[in-house]
Amino acid sequence: MKAVILDLETRSELIVMNPEDEDPRDSQTNMAQIRFETKRRLVQVIRSPMVPKGSIGLPPSLANSMGVSEGSNVAVFARRKPISLPLIKKKYMGKTWTHDDIRTIVDDMYQGNVTDQEMTMFTLAMQYENLSIDETEHLTKAFTLNSETIEFSEPVYDKHSIGGIPGNKVSLLIVPIVAAAGLLIPKTSSRAITSPSGTADTFEVLANVKFTSDEIQDIAPKTRGMLVWGGQLNLAPVDSEIITRVERPLSLDPESVIIASILSKKLATGVKHMVLDMPVGPGTKMATREEAQNLSRLFVEIGRRVGIQVECALTYADQPVGHAIGPALEAREAVVTLMGKGPRSVLEKSIELSGILFEMAGMASRGKGNEIAAEIVKSGKALSKFNEIVHAQGGAKNVKPEEIEIGQYTGKIVATDDGYISRIFNTQIKGMAAALGCPQDKKSGLILHRKQGEFVKKGDVIIELFTTRESALDRALQVANVKAPWLLEGMVLERISDSGNFEIQ
Amino acid sequence: MKAVILDLETRSELIVMNPEDEDPRDSQTNMAQIRFETKRRLVQVIRSPMVPKGSIGLPPSLANSMGVSEGSNVAVFARRKPISLPLIKKKYMGKTWTHDDIRTIVDDMYQGNVTDQEMTMFTLAMQYENLSIDETEHLTKAFTLNSETIEFSEPVYDKHSIGGIPGNKVSLLIVPIVAAAGLLIPKTSSRAITSPSGTADTFEVLANVKFTSDEIQDIAPKTRGMLVWGGQLNLAPVDSEIITRVERPLSLDPESVIIASILSKKLATGVKHMVLDMPVGPGTKMATREEAQNLSRLFVEIGRRVGIQVECALTYADQPVGHAIGPALEAREAVVTLMGKGPRSVLEKSIELSGILFEMAGMASRGKGNEIAAEIVKSGKALSKFNEIVHAQGGAKNVKPEEIEIGQYTGKIVATDDGYISRIFNTQIKGMAAALGCPQDKKSGLILHRKQGEFVKKGDVIIELFTTRESALDRALQVANVKAPWLLEGMVLERISDSGNFEIQ
Repeated sequence: MKAVILDLETRSELIVMNPEDEDPRDSQTNMAQIRFETKRRLVQVIRSPMVPKGSIGLPPSLANSMGVSEGSNVAVFARRKPISLPLIKKKYMGKTWTHDDIRTIVDDMYQGNVTDQEMTMFTLAMQYENLSIDETEHLTKAFTLNSETIEFSEPVYDKHSIGGIPGNKVSLLIVPIVAAAGLLIPKTSSRAITSPSGTADTFEVLANVKFTSDEIQDIAPKTRGMLVWGGQLNLAPVDSEIITRVERPLSLDPESVIIASILSKKLATGVKHMVLDMPVGPGTKMATREEAQNLSRLFVEIGRRVGIQVECALTYADQPVGHAIGPALEAREAVVTLMGKGPRSVLEKSIELSGILFEMAGMASRGKGNEIAAEIVKSGKALSKFNEIVHAQGGAKNVKPEEIEIGQYTGKIVATDDGYISRIFNTQIKGMAAALGCPQDKKSGLILHRKQGEFVKKGDVIIELFTTRESALDRALQVANVKAPWLLEGMVLERISDSGNFEIQ
Repeated sequence: MKAVILDLETRSELIVMNPEDEDPRDSQTNMAQIRFETKRRLVQVIRSPMVPKGSIGLPPSLANSMGVSEGSNVAVFARRKPISLPLIKKKYMGKTWTHDDIRTIVDDMYQGNVTDQEMTMFTLAMQYENLSIDETEHLTKAFTLNSETIEFSEPVYDKHSIGGIPGNKVSLLIVPIVAAAGLLIPKTSSRAITSPSGTADTFEVLANVKFTSDEIQDIAPKTRGMLVWGGQLNLAPVDSEIITRVERPLSLDPESVIIASILSKKLATGVKHMVLDMPVGPGTKMATREEAQNLSRLFVEIGRRVGIQVECALTYADQPVGHAIGPALEAREAVVTLMGKGPRSVLEKSIELSGILFEMAGMASRGKGNEIAAEIVKSGKALSKFNEIVHAQGGAKNVKPEEIEIGQYTGKIVATDDGYISRIFNTQIKGMAAALGCPQDKKSGLILHRKQGEFVKKGDVIIELFTTRESALDRALQVANVKAPWLLEGMVLERISDSGNFEIQ
């Protein structure tokens, strides 16, 4: 049928058809399948005379995501009998999923033949019905189905972080450190979901992060390192586009999906050795060290089975990494740190994680890789590699931190009493950053001038705020007013309200 | 906002708003809540200039179900923070639901604050996470929340069937038999979901079945019996309107919901004594006697806890009850049976189930209630009570079976060999009835002239078909061609194709 792009915006996948055309919906789900070239989607159907007979109306979002334009020939079908549903149910009956079961379910999802309700049932099974190691391995392999791939003639190294900690700009240091040593590290990163800035958001302040797989295959062997946005590529499409959609509204996050999601994308991009940064602490994905250890063991084992050497590093995450939070501010701090003038926490974490990759590469014995990394930073090789990568990705030849623009509206939050800072609350810091405009407003963010363990005096600036919209300052303050972003030791018992110990200037 | 009824048809709940009006969607679910008088719904939002600023466009289906008309003032809100989700998750964590938990979840659903995805999670928990007897009791009570109620000054008797068997018109006999003995039995019935005819569909051939609770409270004490459509009343709304919607596409049917659904509606209609007809056999809800026994024990116990005396009767359901299948044909057979000229299976089942109610009422000792019932039929009292009820519900004064109209297009399926009928397949019979037009086309259906155990000769008519559309005859034959509706004993081994032993005349 002839596509008509409609002037309507919706976050649901739906089409509009003329009531005189044959109704393609099945009675069970009331949905239909549309196909255009290789893309297939299960959609709701609205019937209205607003679309002429023989045409099919699509909202622009759906048309874009399928590559449909005005006049394209889009086919409409009744939904095929769902082959996944009985397989999904197996797991609830106490049976295990075979390799073929999982492959069939994932492929059925890719074919646009599985309803959100069925996907929810699948995701719930993964969350609560105890997937075995074998099943997680099957899932990892199944996620690579229909994935775009990036191929290199040599092993790819990678650093990956299991999200959650604000200020974690270490990938901007690790990639040039590792690349400067000659290892190949074309890193794909994500944008922020709940954090103030993802690696892709931060690096985009300095350079382009959108590249095709051909471009990556072309550039990376020369620079040895890249920092690109993975969302641009079609990696593990069922995980990225489909399962994520049903997980989020129910706050589901099954371990097996975390593992399969990460490792399948690494498989598709040729990764053979990976260090996994696993921040542990309140307000991160891993609340306790034990949880993180269990997940690490699973990662290592599944990695081994699919041919990726994984080493997990449990990292300190009680408070933000470094001082800067927000895309432009973090980019600045990364460059300053490469110049040797940044915060110790950022440098140390970058050096340790890079060192693990050097050990995997056989360049150093266990525990000695960090020395190579430290030397690469100290010698300035990491900084010049960083500039080389930025330039190869369309940025400046020589990044100057003071030229990175930040928001013109600023505010300060000061201590209203003396005391030691005993806690910095990641959740409050994230909330303030979001209020300031992160991650969309790249120039927004905050600097945490004082961190845990430091003694502060009444009037000392603890947090400095930046944004491009004046009204955002008030909103950030409101967040801090609901619950203070820090705790001053020795004062907890005397406080009446959490909002009593700071003010905005 | 001002309601505009749009010329569009959809089975999804959605509204259309002008892009210039404030976006009420929350980022998690992309949904908004609309309110009109006491009704609340969670809806998808489409933004399009087709609706003027300050207005809200509704499809007619949604407008009707909420009682909204053009120009009504409908309020739009952001979805409240879902209070149910953490409670639903509790069950997956191995905890049990308290009375308050279940009450909160069910009320949150009624308030239009629970997404289909969350409801799916709730229903899956009930299906697979082993609800305790306590939890099922809580669910039964919670389903009565916000339910319409029908009140009488005396105990109500009831007969209920757990669906699934074609030709089960016994309620049309049981209600007048029980009412003729002076007990109060204002029976609410459902329409067919998958079966050829629900009690409400069948009785509607003869009389009106749509009554308000006030009308039922008024008529029933006089006639002692009624046969009304329960769907017209707002009984256990969360179960009827909401949970059913998510159960069906996944073919979920948790025992706890079956029990809570039935007993909550009985509570709301004042039932104190109930006989539960539980058909057992292939192609019905209860495949084995053991399953039916387990469910029966639960029904009796939950009934006891909520104040309803329940007795379950496991009934023979290997083949249809009686000969007639389809609304008008079943109505005919019911009347003929009350006249003393109907099939033994229909009469016997009606008498036995009525007898159980007489025993519950203390009118007979255990096992002797059927004698009272048989006498009421034999004396003609059941028939005259039946005519009285039909007339009170707006039907004829004296129902004549031959005047009940049936489809003018008929066909016959005959045996192509000699043999004993060893099986009649309910599923095939249902499929043929659906193809003929049941339950919407009330004059359609079939008569099963020969049943299990009977000897048939080549050329004998086994099934006679009726419909109002000639093309439906072919479709019914196609169903029979895929798999024959009966098995002839002794011939199974020689057959090459299942479709070989009948033909249409």
